[in-house]
Amino acid sequence: MEVYVNKDKYWSERVKNLEPYIPGEQPKDKKYIKLNTNENPYPPSPKVFEAIVNSADECLRLYPDPECTELRKAIASYHNLNEKQVFPGNGSDEILAFSFMAFFNPGNPIAFPETTYSFYPVYCNMFNIHYNLIPLDDEYSIEVDKFFNQKGGVIFPNPNAPTGKVLPLQAIRDILIHNNESTVIIDEAYIDFGGDSAVSLIDGFPNLLIIQTFSKSRSLAGLRLGFAMGNENLIEALNRVKNSINSYTIDRLAIKAGIEAIKDEVWFQSTRQKIIATRERVVASLKAMGFKVINSEANFIFITHQKCNAENLFKSLKKMGVLVRYFRKPGIDNYLRVSIGTDEEMDKFLDIISQII
Amino acid sequence: MEVYVNKDKYWSERVKNLEPYIPGEQPKDKKYIKLNTNENPYPPSPKVFEAIVNSADECLRLYPDPECTELRKAIASYHNLNEKQVFPGNGSDEILAFSFMAFFNPGNPIAFPETTYSFYPVYCNMFNIHYNLIPLDDEYSIEVDKFFNQKGGVIFPNPNAPTGKVLPLQAIRDILIHNNESTVIIDEAYIDFGGDSAVSLIDGFPNLLIIQTFSKSRSLAGLRLGFAMGNENLIEALNRVKNSINSYTIDRLAIKAGIEAIKDEVWFQSTRQKIIATRERVVASLKAMGFKVINSEANFIFITHQKCNAENLFKSLKKMGVLVRYFRKPGIDNYLRVSIGTDEEMDKFLDIISQII
Repeated sequence: MEVYVNKDKYWSERVKNLEPYIPGEQPKDKKYIKLNTNENPYPPSPKVFEAIVNSADECLRLYPDPECTELRKAIASYHNLNEKQVFPGNGSDEILAFSFMAFFNPGNPIAFPETTYSFYPVYCNMFNIHYNLIPLDDEYSIEVDKFFNQKGGVIFPNPNAPTGKVLPLQAIRDILIHNNESTVIIDEAYIDFGGDSAVSLIDGFPNLLIIQTFSKSRSLAGLRLGFAMGNENLIEALNRVKNSINSYTIDRLAIKAGIEAIKDEVWFQSTRQKIIATRERVVASLKAMGFKVINSEANFIFITHQKCNAENLFKSLKKMGVLVRYFRKPGIDNYLRVSIGTDEEMDKFLDIISQII
Repeated sequence: MEVYVNKDKYWSERVKNLEPYIPGEQPKDKKYIKLNTNENPYPPSPKVFEAIVNSADECLRLYPDPECTELRKAIASYHNLNEKQVFPGNGSDEILAFSFMAFFNPGNPIAFPETTYSFYPVYCNMFNIHYNLIPLDDEYSIEVDKFFNQKGGVIFPNPNAPTGKVLPLQAIRDILIHNNESTVIIDEAYIDFGGDSAVSLIDGFPNLLIIQTFSKSRSLAGLRLGFAMGNENLIEALNRVKNSINSYTIDRLAIKAGIEAIKDEVWFQSTRQKIIATRERVVASLKAMGFKVINSEANFIFITHQKCNAENLFKSLKKMGVLVRYFRKPGIDNYLRVSIGTDEEMDKFLDIISQII
C-alpha cells in the first residue's frame, strides 16, 4: 500500500518554484502533417545511417570519448576554428542550460527580447537569474541599441524565434562592441536557412558564444546534437559545467553520426536550398490569400490574418490533420508559427488553410 | 588576431568555484587491458544492435518522445512498477545531477559516506549544497545508524564505490525509517552484480529514490542511459528539472536500444553470472598472492597489498598494458580499484600483477 504524503513534500525549494518548458506536441494519436516543431522534412545524409550501422558494435559497452575530440575536429574544420573553440552537447537546449550556468550570475540581470525562444525565461527561473525583456519594434525586429551596455549578459536567437527575422552581421558586431564586459550568446539554431553566421567574429570578440544545432539544418533532431563555438576560455567554462554534471553527454552513435553529417556538404546544401525555395513559394501563396507574413530567414514562418483568429485557425488546422504551433502570449497571440515541410506537405497545407479562411 | 583577456573574465561566479569531476581515462595512445572504468567486458544483447540498425531511418529527423513512454513502460514492467514511477536519463550521472537539484537544498546539509563515488561532492559544489561526510568503519563498511535523522537528505551507492561492499535490504529500510522527512537516494549502479535492489521498498517509502544504469550490467556505457525509480511525486520533481534544462535528453536510438536491453533477460543473466564467477575466481587468486580484497558485490574489486605501494603498482600495471583506477585520497590511497574483465583479460592481469609483486 502506498503511503500518502503531500505531493511536494520531498521537493527542493528550487523545484517548487519551477515553470518548466513545454515542447511542441509529438502526437501519437494520428498521422499529421507535422509543421509544429521546426523539424527538417528531409532525412539526414545517407552517410549518417551508414555511420550508425557501422558503429552499432561491441564498443557500445565502452564509454564514449568524454571530450568528443573527433567530432570537435570535424566541426572546427568546417567552421575554420580550432577544436578548443568548439563544445558539443546533447542538443542546443542542453548547451543553453550550461551557458546560463557558465556565464550569467544571479543578481545581475541579462537581456533578451520580449518575444523570443520561450526556454530562456525557464532557464532564468531554474538558475535564479534575473532578466530584462526588451520589446521588439512594431515590425517585430530586434532594436539593436536597446541591447547595448547590458551588464549581466545578452542572449537572442538569430534568426529570432518565433518570428524568423534575422539581424545582419553589422548589428551583431555593434551589440558585441557595446557589451565588452559581459557574454553575448547568439543562438543560431536557424542560421543555415538564410542569415549570416557570426562565427567570423569569434576571433575578434572574446565574449561571443555562438550556439548551433544538428536538429534543424542537419535533420538530426532525433539524435540530440548541438554545439557551441567561441573563444576557448568560454569553451572551458562550458566544459567545467558539463564535467560537474555528466562527463559523457553525447553517445558513441551520435558522435559518429555528427561527424558524417557535418562532412556531407552536398546533402546539406541541397536540402537547405529546397527548404528555402519552398519557404519563398509558400510565403507568396499565403500573401496572396491575405496573410501577413513576417520576413523569415528560418525554416518556419510566422503568419497572421486580419480576418481569422489564430487560435481558431490552429484548431481547425489540427482537426484537418495539420499541426502548427500557437503561442497564447500577449503580442503574438494572433499569429501561427508554421514549419516548412516538403513541397507536397506545404501544398496540402496551403490547400487546407485556403479552405478554412 | 585574438584579443587577450583574463581567462575567467566572462565566467560566472559558479564556474569560477567549480572543481569538476575527472572520469577514468579513455586511452587513445595504445591498446590496454582496460579495467579502469567498470565497463562490462561483454557486448550488449544482440537485440540491441538489431534495434539500432532498424531505427537508423528517416525518423532521426524528428525529435524523440520527450517522455520516453515506451522505454519507461519496459523498465516499469521489468521492475513491477507503474510507468509514472520511472524516470530515464542520459546516464545515471545526469540523473544524479538532476536529483541534487530536485531534492536537496542549500543550507540543509546532506549526508554521504566519506569514501564513496567522487562525483557527489562535485554536485554539491555545483549546486551549492553543504554535506556531512560520514566515515566508513575500519572494515570499509557503511555504519547504518550514522545515517539516521539526516535532515537534508542522504545519498550513497549500494554496493558502495569504490569498495564494492553492499548493505542488506534491512539496513536500507532502517535508514529510510529514520529519515522520513528527507529524500534518501540509493545509487544502485552496481546492484546487478550481487546485492538486493531496494526497488521492493518503493511502495512503502515515498522518500526513496533508486538510480540504476544501463552502463554496467547492460553493457551500454557508450549509449548513455540510466533511470530512476521511486514514488511518482519524486519522479515528477525530476521531470520538472529535466523540462527546465533539456526536453529531450535521450535520443531515438538509445530509447530503442534500452527497450531491447531490458527485455533480454537471458543475455543479462548469462553475462552478469559470468562476471560474478570471474570476480570470485580473481579474488581467490589475489588473496593467494597476499592481497587484501574487500568483499565486493560489484563488477570491480578494491585491493591492497601490505608490501606493495598502490600508486607504484598502478604505474607498473599501466606500463605493462593494464589500466586500473587509483585514487590519490587519504584513507584509500594504498588501494587499487580493478574492474572485472573477461576471464582471458583477468588471467593476463593476474599474470602481470604476480610478476610485479
